[in-house]
Amino acid sequence: MSQPLRLGIAGLGTVGAGVVKIVRQKAALLETRSGRKVEISAVSARNRDKDRGVPLSDYGWEDDPVALATRDDVDVFVELMGGSDGPAKAATEAALKAGKDVVTANKAMLAHHGQELAQLAEDNGAVLRFEAAVAGGIPIIKSLTEGLAGNEIERVMGVMNGTCNYILTRMEDAGLSYDEAFAEADGLGYLEADPNLDVGGIDAGHKLSLLSSIAFGTQVNFAGVELEGIGCVSIEDIRQAADMGYRIKLLGVARLTGRGLEQTMTPCLVPASSPLGQLQGGTNMVVVDGDQVGQIVLRGAGAGEGPTASAVMGDVMDIARGLRVTTFGQPAATLKPAPAAKATVAAPFYLRLNLQDKPGAMAKVAAVLGEAGVSIDRMRQYSHDDQTTAPVLIVTHKTTRSALDEALAQMGATGVVSDDPVALRIEEV
Amino acid sequence: MSQPLRLGIAGLGTVGAGVVKIVRQKAALLETRSGRKVEISAVSARNRDKDRGVPLSDYGWEDDPVALATRDDVDVFVELMGGSDGPAKAATEAALKAGKDVVTANKAMLAHHGQELAQLAEDNGAVLRFEAAVAGGIPIIKSLTEGLAGNEIERVMGVMNGTCNYILTRMEDAGLSYDEAFAEADGLGYLEADPNLDVGGIDAGHKLSLLSSIAFGTQVNFAGVELEGIGCVSIEDIRQAADMGYRIKLLGVARLTGRGLEQTMTPCLVPASSPLGQLQGGTNMVVVDGDQVGQIVLRGAGAGEGPTASAVMGDVMDIARGLRVTTFGQPAATLKPAPAAKATVAAPFYLRLNLQDKPGAMAKVAAVLGEAGVSIDRMRQYSHDDQTTAPVLIVTHKTTRSALDEALAQMGATGVVSDDPVALRIEEV
Repeated sequence: MSQPLRLGIAGLGTVGAGVVKIVRQKAALLETRSGRKVEISAVSARNRDKDRGVPLSDYGWEDDPVALATRDDVDVFVELMGGSDGPAKAATEAALKAGKDVVTANKAMLAHHGQELAQLAEDNGAVLRFEAAVAGGIPIIKSLTEGLAGNEIERVMGVMNGTCNYILTRMEDAGLSYDEAFAEADGLGYLEADPNLDVGGIDAGHKLSLLSSIAFGTQVNFAGVELEGIGCVSIEDIRQAADMGYRIKLLGVARLTGRGLEQTMTPCLVPASSPLGQLQGGTNMVVVDGDQVGQIVLRGAGAGEGPTASAVMGDVMDIARGLRVTTFGQPAATLKPAPAAKATVAAPFYLRLNLQDKPGAMAKVAAVLGEAGVSIDRMRQYSHDDQTTAPVLIVTHKTTRSALDEALAQMGATGVVSDDPVALRIEEV
Repeated sequence: MSQPLRLGIAGLGTVGAGVVKIVRQKAALLETRSGRKVEISAVSARNRDKDRGVPLSDYGWEDDPVALATRDDVDVFVELMGGSDGPAKAATEAALKAGKDVVTANKAMLAHHGQELAQLAEDNGAVLRFEAAVAGGIPIIKSLTEGLAGNEIERVMGVMNGTCNYILTRMEDAGLSYDEAFAEADGLGYLEADPNLDVGGIDAGHKLSLLSSIAFGTQVNFAGVELEGIGCVSIEDIRQAADMGYRIKLLGVARLTGRGLEQTMTPCLVPASSPLGQLQGGTNMVVVDGDQVGQIVLRGAGAGEGPTASAVMGDVMDIARGLRVTTFGQPAATLKPAPAAKATVAAPFYLRLNLQDKPGAMAKVAAVLGEAGVSIDRMRQYSHDDQTTAPVLIVTHKTTRSALDEALAQMGATGVVSDDPVALRIEEV
């Protein structure tokens, strides 16, 4: 029988406690499957005295995660603290330099430092795995890195922030305003300490940038993700979208083209009856198009104790079994730099404008769209109590974002459009 | 740089030719990802002269797959011949005995001989992988064996035979009879040489038995799969199901309970709006419920050159990367024997009877159901041209299959029911 695999777990929040529970309660199962015992040597967290619902007295304690990461009795450093820099990064680096394997759920750290950390792991004969960082319990990192390794990946797409999806779902189901749904999500503890990480699309953008790297063999380029949060989505947009058979989702799409790496994480309209449209609440979905496999769709819980701990344990079990893969599926030095490119794929767009109630106003808007080469598929103007502006909805024919942006820039100069227009891409998935 | 990984491919049908194409066309990509070259040393098929659309003159040729499997210049034997016994089994055994790794798409061989072949692989330090055997391009074997290794699996469920799904979809969409849709699928080359493998549920049953083994750590027990093909499904059932918001799918469900291993592969009603209900044509879906991860759903093409070759290459790339896992996720000797048990989970059932047009006939049917403890949720009796019998549809409240079988057995004795009743489980997924 092989030596036990000894874990050091830093961060004992919901996920950390979940990992401890699995290791304690499933010891026999884990040993049967991996051929060796999986044990915990020591743990670390900010507050030693907090009751986390799991007994910790069997394990060593370190106040300093760096000390934990480098303990002689730790084979795998499990980083569940979060934060792109600070203690998480320091401890991860210390572990890798000491030749210890690292399992992390930290998308922010990898989105910002993935390239250097992957290289550091390789230089020290260690592996750095992060299944739990993307789409919770869905085994998307493994599927993309290993299962689909015979494919050239054409596109990766997904709904990967459960909190945003919860807010959008509640707006539609309960008729809440964005602010009301936001407050509800906050009250339920769904939001990050900095809510903009969620609603600004940053967290989901981190995840997309990691998937892109694996899919296209490119260096992680989070700065190149075109980010737009869900704060611009009004209940009116939700209702209009529903009326036309669509739902609004914070959707990430990544493609590598001759022009560069196109990564967008923006609110989009998707058909209400499509798999993406039917996602409710905190459920995540990732859609991968490969040149051989066609389209693969994976769905599951995007967060929560059990699902995230399941993903952490998947990585731990790989290491216990001796399955060692490079962080992004190929040696870090072979990952190509990927300059960001504006998305060029043509798509229909949904536009909502407040048009001033003046003769010829609509003609001016139509002219601006026409000059930019954007043609109109459908349009609705609504009656309005307000005497000065009228809401107008436009669905365009397929156009590029840059043509649309040109039209939107010109629209301000017409003097007939109040407020900034809302423009959301329609993905016919 | 490591030594090249050298393949010997037996069987050059659609999938075999697809694998050859990937190895030829993606040589650089495969080498970057795995860190070594992936090459083909030799191939084998029944007919050397057939044009398969790929150049084969660079490779050695063996008429005998056993000779191919044991060549000195073959590291991995890729078995794509099919058939549970005969040359496929002989060559697989020869390869494993020679310590060579085997990648196969052969569900029938593994469903019948998985236990002994897994043991043979381990005894010889070889691995035997079979991602392509289940659900085409969907990386379900990898997800279940590795990604979800920290879970106790509670249920595995899926639509895993594209041909059956095609026939059922065409019956609904085009209003074809079963025989017409069957003939259409046959004309398109979708059916196995022995069509009963498809429409009898045997092929899908093979797949389910393999998933059960991984999920529950049990010996493959294909003989224990309760099989019912789609031949009993009439266009009338399809229409009635649609009327009530359901679609009929050939659905596999496996659970391990205290009583034993419950495996059913039977036509079921699923909500038309559910992910399973929305599957069209040849698309497959596997649903896994884990105690930690909750529900994970994977969807993709269940067959075809690209998807199946993608799965084969996933296994090949694992081996190239040195990722070595036991066949069913734990040592063969630790797989528990799994006696088959009748499914005991209560579910609503759909019943279709032809009731003789006699006074008191319905009362007799209702009495028989009541005596067996089966209560009626909804019932419809239709007007009928035929003067002697009337079609009656019943949806029961939740009941067990055994209670229902008891009622059905008694129903014959009433003398008021013509023909055998159709009874299909309703899965509210």
